[in-house]
Amino acid sequence: MTGAAAVLPMAGLLFLPLLLLVGSGSSGVWPRPQLFRVPQGGGQCSLSPSRFRFGYAGSSAVGPGCVVLDQAFQRYRRLLFPELTENDLAWDSLCNELLVTVNMPGCDGFPDMHSKENYKLDISEEQMLLTADTVWGALRGLETFSQLVWRDDNGTYYVNETDIIDFPRFAHRGLLLDTSRHYLPVGAILETLDVMAYSKFNVFHWHIVDDPSFPYQSIAFPELSRKGAYNPATHVYTTSDVKMVIEHARLRGIRVISELDTPGHTLSWGPGAPGLLTPCYTGPNPSGSYGPVNPILNTTYQFMAKLFAEVSAMFPDFYLHLGGDEVDFTCWRSNPDIQAFMQKMGFGQDYAQLESFYIQRLLDIVSAYGKGYVVWQEVFDNRVKMKPDTIIHVWKENSGAYQKEMARVTKAGYRTLLSAPWYLNHISYGQDWLQAYQVEPLEFEGSPEQKNLVIGGEACMWGEYVDVTNLTPRLWPRAGAVAERLWSNATVRDLQDAYGRLADFRCKLLGRGIQAEPLFTGYCEHEYRGI
Amino acid sequence: MTGAAAVLPMAGLLFLPLLLLVGSGSSGVWPRPQLFRVPQGGGQCSLSPSRFRFGYAGSSAVGPGCVVLDQAFQRYRRLLFPELTENDLAWDSLCNELLVTVNMPGCDGFPDMHSKENYKLDISEEQMLLTADTVWGALRGLETFSQLVWRDDNGTYYVNETDIIDFPRFAHRGLLLDTSRHYLPVGAILETLDVMAYSKFNVFHWHIVDDPSFPYQSIAFPELSRKGAYNPATHVYTTSDVKMVIEHARLRGIRVISELDTPGHTLSWGPGAPGLLTPCYTGPNPSGSYGPVNPILNTTYQFMAKLFAEVSAMFPDFYLHLGGDEVDFTCWRSNPDIQAFMQKMGFGQDYAQLESFYIQRLLDIVSAYGKGYVVWQEVFDNRVKMKPDTIIHVWKENSGAYQKEMARVTKAGYRTLLSAPWYLNHISYGQDWLQAYQVEPLEFEGSPEQKNLVIGGEACMWGEYVDVTNLTPRLWPRAGAVAERLWSNATVRDLQDAYGRLADFRCKLLGRGIQAEPLFTGYCEHEYRGI
Repeated sequence: MTGAAAVLPMAGLLFLPLLLLVGSGSSGVWPRPQLFRVPQGGGQCSLSPSRFRFGYAGSSAVGPGCVVLDQAFQRYRRLLFPELTENDLAWDSLCNELLVTVNMPGCDGFPDMHSKENYKLDISEEQMLLTADTVWGALRGLETFSQLVWRDDNGTYYVNETDIIDFPRFAHRGLLLDTSRHYLPVGAILETLDVMAYSKFNVFHWHIVDDPSFPYQSIAFPELSRKGAYNPATHVYTTSDVKMVIEHARLRGIRVISELDTPGHTLSWGPGAPGLLTPCYTGPNPSGSYGPVNPILNTTYQFMAKLFAEVSAMFPDFYLHLGGDEVDFTCWRSNPDIQAFMQKMGFGQDYAQLESFYIQRLLDIVSAYGKGYVVWQEVFDNRVKMKPDTIIHVWKENSGAYQKEMARVTKAGYRTLLSAPWYLNHISYGQDWLQAYQVEPLEFEGSPEQKNLVIGGEACMWGEYVDVTNLTPRLWPRAGAVAERLWSNATVRDLQDAYGRLADFRCKLLGRGIQAEPLFTGYCEHEYRGI
Repeated sequence: MTGAAAVLPMAGLLFLPLLLLVGSGSSGVWPRPQLFRVPQGGGQCSLSPSRFRFGYAGSSAVGPGCVVLDQAFQRYRRLLFPELTENDLAWDSLCNELLVTVNMPGCDGFPDMHSKENYKLDISEEQMLLTADTVWGALRGLETFSQLVWRDDNGTYYVNETDIIDFPRFAHRGLLLDTSRHYLPVGAILETLDVMAYSKFNVFHWHIVDDPSFPYQSIAFPELSRKGAYNPATHVYTTSDVKMVIEHARLRGIRVISELDTPGHTLSWGPGAPGLLTPCYTGPNPSGSYGPVNPILNTTYQFMAKLFAEVSAMFPDFYLHLGGDEVDFTCWRSNPDIQAFMQKMGFGQDYAQLESFYIQRLLDIVSAYGKGYVVWQEVFDNRVKMKPDTIIHVWKENSGAYQKEMARVTKAGYRTLLSAPWYLNHISYGQDWLQAYQVEPLEFEGSPEQKNLVIGGEACMWGEYVDVTNLTPRLWPRAGAVAERLWSNATVRDLQDAYGRLADFRCKLLGRGIQAEPLFTGYCEHEYRGI
């Protein structure tokens, strides 16, 4: 009487007994590597938890003291052998060291849009080698290696003879969290970064403020969070919180792109920034409510210049996300000063021109700080003049429409990011990871040059119905579907195979303490132990 | 760019700033009591955490030593004052004792279908009195009292002058958990029972086994779980687990009704009970797969007699749920022995008659053990002869159809339970608690006598997509909508008021450590601290 059959046409096809998957280990890498070879008749090698170590090859351009890899070695030792005790027997094995070679020096910087993430894994009984051009690629390879290790029924750890050559399909593989509609504690953000690294996401898009609350504790404008946060004592991100998030991300090869969305989505800015928002009018009188940022005042741009100077320095990534979406013109239209300005500027009744006027000045401010920017698609739709290296973020979900928008944006020569089909806050009954997985980002009309302008995409988890109580099970493993689509080869589309590997990946997440929800009926050898 | 507005027509109506709700305390009781009066100009009384106590009135028919209430007093002290430390200042207050009177003796029994749950709360500055006919009613009153207490900004506890007369609208207010599609650890079941008590549910319907797994560890047939559980070492309910669940429930005034569904939904029984299931045929040969319980063998009924003797003794409630839903006739049809039996019995090609034949004998077996039974609606639809006190459980969701089924079932004189519109495993984006809340169980064509046969309903959380990782946020506070519909007066339907109280109830759940998800944008004073 569960009625599942009626609403789950694919349930039959996709119901694999998980029993067969658990422990199959070696083939269950998520996202699937570009080239994955297990030689026929290839052997398997046992690992001794107490002897196993990661080492730097002599020829490696980085070595001990490289914090990114030193710490990754420690993390992955714990992830590989969670139950290691002092009493574990040690035995000799040829597979007791994964030797890491990084070709290019550099450990202390931040990953960026152009960072190479390619790596090679060469696992045999003679040697286990991980080679990468950069430390960021080495991190991706360590994750893959950790997914190759499996245990037999006696608890012995094994790794199968395997050759892997791997690299991402898209450079920008992002995940958006919204910390305004609900505040997310820093711990939840750090855990999300962990799982992003497990699934090879490399951009954390931090939609940090919005209408409902302003949790970002600004140094220049402390009143913004003091008056705009849900609770200025408990529901804020201090400078040290932000730095912690950025460093946690860096150590996992993840960029952090902040978004302080303007001129709409700014209601929570109002109390802490008098004069910033447009006063709305009812007839000839102010109604007492406020609309978008007031674009006609010099003080507005002085404010933005100071705020974005701080934000530009705080977030080291070259890119800022500047928002620019969903500007409601009702309030602007009601305000006599705005009306007068429109007339003076010759904008007529076209408020999109006023929005463009604002955005244009904001882009100039941010450019002056040596930053690049990402904007939501409306900024492009409204024909704002942008630098050619602007990235347009396509989000409008209307069925079929996003492909047309991708075509328009790339035709105009802009790089683009896709999120429209990846609003993971939108849930439905059943295996809704399938829809996200079956998206093909390059499926739009355009030349090869246009397709090259698609630099990736982002899974979005908007916060209307999501806070720390349901974030993790709602995000994982569903976001994994987007991660594989953005990392793996375009030809990796077999749903049966994907189901098996994603279910297996989800079991691995449980083993790592992550509260990831099930894909379907079944069980994992190590279930979630949080309750 | 969250697109929430497009899919959430009611968002505007329902978006109340939670700020106003948090701490409003006294009016936020969930589910809403039948009669709730806060006198105009009524005072409020402060509570001293270290002095406050629950006491038995001299006239009470139960007193110290009554485990149900002794333990409830301890629980509610901890729930009321979670931050109590030794250093808390004590002060004299007239409101430092809630005096409890129970009119009828009885502490050691189990609640049943006819248990009275009515209570009265009389809170003033002179006295705080809780009066109930039974300990079960006293438990309901304690929960209400705990929801009346609130704190001001300084952390002082208060309770407002309030009169409450309360009783449930329906006697059977159930919640179904499915522990077969995914195993739920006992801790998760106990926590669910806690929150059921917070929202005044009084029946835990334990759908303990089904096709995918058989976690119930039978004493008479240990092979069933040894071969049918996902993992016989870790994914089973031992006798002591079951007893723990039943006692935990009893102490909260909650009945436990077990369901071992037959003759369909029994695939997992097969390996541990050779000969029990029908061998399916492809043409003239057995295909190797199995169908429903084999209804033509005497051994089947011997098996059921022994198993249900055990289950009847294990679960003290008068009622067993016997299932009887979704029997697929394909396998029966393919089997030559079944065909022969059909002919011999004169059933023709009407396999519903064969199903009836089976169910009829099962009902007789269970009746002989002095038990009553609940069955899914197909048993009624298939015209099985049942005792007049059988309860028919309506689950088929086809829009509008369940009202017709309720009319038919009650017209035939049977009592009925409604679940069709309350499949909470079915999720959708947005505030889907609203649909559950707006159901009116008596909205079908029928006489007052027919309406009287509706004894209540159950919220169902089937397990295809639910395990311990997402059970709690998916269940709460959504199930609260069903709880209020079944407890409160039929006139309690104001959505704005319900939103405020349910959001407030959800904040209280967070304060009690329950991972309940948000209804909408906002925050609670005490957020979830599990991550």
